[in-house]
Amino acid sequence: MYNPEKPYKQQILNSIRETWKSSAFFDVEKTASYPILKKTSLIEVFHTDGIGTKGIFHWKKRTFASAVQDAMAMNLNDLAMMRATPQTLQNHLYLPKDDHEAVLEIIRELVKSAKKFGIMVTGGETSIHNDMEGMDLSITMSAYIRRKTDLVPNKVQEGDTIIGIPSTGLHSNGFTKVRELYKRYQPVFVIPTAIYLLPVTEIREMYQINGMMHITGGAFTKLKDILTPKLDINILQEQSPHKIFWKLRSKGISSEEMYRTFNCGIGFVFSVPPEQAKTILSKYPTYHRIGHVSKGHGNVNIKSVFDGEEVRY
Amino acid sequence: MYNPEKPYKQQILNSIRETWKSSAFFDVEKTASYPILKKTSLIEVFHTDGIGTKGIFHWKKRTFASAVQDAMAMNLNDLAMMRATPQTLQNHLYLPKDDHEAVLEIIRELVKSAKKFGIMVTGGETSIHNDMEGMDLSITMSAYIRRKTDLVPNKVQEGDTIIGIPSTGLHSNGFTKVRELYKRYQPVFVIPTAIYLLPVTEIREMYQINGMMHITGGAFTKLKDILTPKLDINILQEQSPHKIFWKLRSKGISSEEMYRTFNCGIGFVFSVPPEQAKTILSKYPTYHRIGHVSKGHGNVNIKSVFDGEEVRY
Repeated sequence: MYNPEKPYKQQILNSIRETWKSSAFFDVEKTASYPILKKTSLIEVFHTDGIGTKGIFHWKKRTFASAVQDAMAMNLNDLAMMRATPQTLQNHLYLPKDDHEAVLEIIRELVKSAKKFGIMVTGGETSIHNDMEGMDLSITMSAYIRRKTDLVPNKVQEGDTIIGIPSTGLHSNGFTKVRELYKRYQPVFVIPTAIYLLPVTEIREMYQINGMMHITGGAFTKLKDILTPKLDINILQEQSPHKIFWKLRSKGISSEEMYRTFNCGIGFVFSVPPEQAKTILSKYPTYHRIGHVSKGHGNVNIKSVFDGEEVRY
Repeated sequence: MYNPEKPYKQQILNSIRETWKSSAFFDVEKTASYPILKKTSLIEVFHTDGIGTKGIFHWKKRTFASAVQDAMAMNLNDLAMMRATPQTLQNHLYLPKDDHEAVLEIIRELVKSAKKFGIMVTGGETSIHNDMEGMDLSITMSAYIRRKTDLVPNKVQEGDTIIGIPSTGLHSNGFTKVRELYKRYQPVFVIPTAIYLLPVTEIREMYQINGMMHITGGAFTKLKDILTPKLDINILQEQSPHKIFWKLRSKGISSEEMYRTFNCGIGFVFSVPPEQAKTILSKYPTYHRIGHVSKGHGNVNIKSVFDGEEVRY
């Protein structure tokens, strides 16, 4: 989805919303960020995302399975957050040269991943862009939401506990910054993004989840999307994140920029009532309490794990 | 769609076809190149395409309305060929730098075009790729086909007349070659691709169209897709194409490569019974008879307008 930190996000949404209308195929309802296309008890939604400039490293190291996992994760994790079940995907593969072996390996990995998640690959396109240094894989998924059970607000509530699911490292965001700071490749750059679809689906079927967020472009500023004007989300991260984040911090990135740009070790966030949090945390020992929701003014407050600095978005 | 000239096209299709299966949302039937997702009397199909390296010129000249028209045309023309009515689109915009004004102008033009064709813009993504020289706009459309009237074979028949609809120039293909041959920008590079959706829809509702093809990547080799093994398509182009094609030919590109890479002045092709052709040609004076279908061996035979050379694919 469009990066919420960008000043043009709301203008884009206002603009595209003008095109949302019912048709021969669908009845349409407008929500804040996507239209819902109604058919019987199922609602169709769409999602698009890709790898970004991380693709430079995947291309150079030919880590195509990881590249596919990154592109799938970026879509599946956002759909998980929307409580949507993926159905079909179209892919648009960008390569800097026409490398048949690469194309076929990427499609093979894409099909493998699609089968794992029960998704149909309905078609796609390959573009040879000899004006670009790396690769990219854009994926557009169609998915469905069950009207009765899945169409619920995604907003935190006062007193909620914030649970964080660990990331695998940098995931697929902040690579423009990473490339500014590192002149040389590091193996940690190509670790693929964690896919949270299966655990998130399991947890949302069993527990009351008030709010969810996939920590991607815009990082912790994205939490503003699940806030309401009279509440604050307060993050106090106790677990030390991966080394790469400490190294980035030591290269002069402020805590404010760290939490705005990088996942800082946390890839997905739940906001749940405290008693539910207890059960979830005992069942999933790698998840951690990383904060709580209090009365406030629609702010995200973070006490930086790096230097104790207080950051506010 | 995947370029038919690429040796890996069939392997890609065989591979992705493994993922086509029925689900809670759809019943699925497998066709040769796409799955049909059935709901009542309407069938949902998807399509993905973008601008390619032509985007370098649109970015440099900031011809964003033309860039949007190119991306829309690449999808709408292929859907027209599938007799599909577009419903929704997701966009994925690639820019070499974070230029808010450019983003907003592109979205504005996209919305304008979407409204013109009755399409909902359901969402999208913007990616800043500072490793690329130009822009790209990848669009994925969902569309519907009416089961009873639109689900017909797209194959030429013996004796058919081949009608060509003029292109506006280079359209959005062959720019890798163009950039090899031209060191300097020419205004003709940014002329947008013609959108054939409305005339094609009108014509297919009124006349018997046996085969249709959008002349894009792979150019006239794409006509093999609408051939059967015992027929040939014979092209004898009488109208002189745009100057740019003559210039490209004069830079040493053979006729064989010209017709494999460029639309050579013809953007869309119909194969229709001769008596229908007569009526269509009198109603649409800019369209031309450019060939016919004979008994043969599944070949596309072209007598080059440039040098009279006989080309066979």
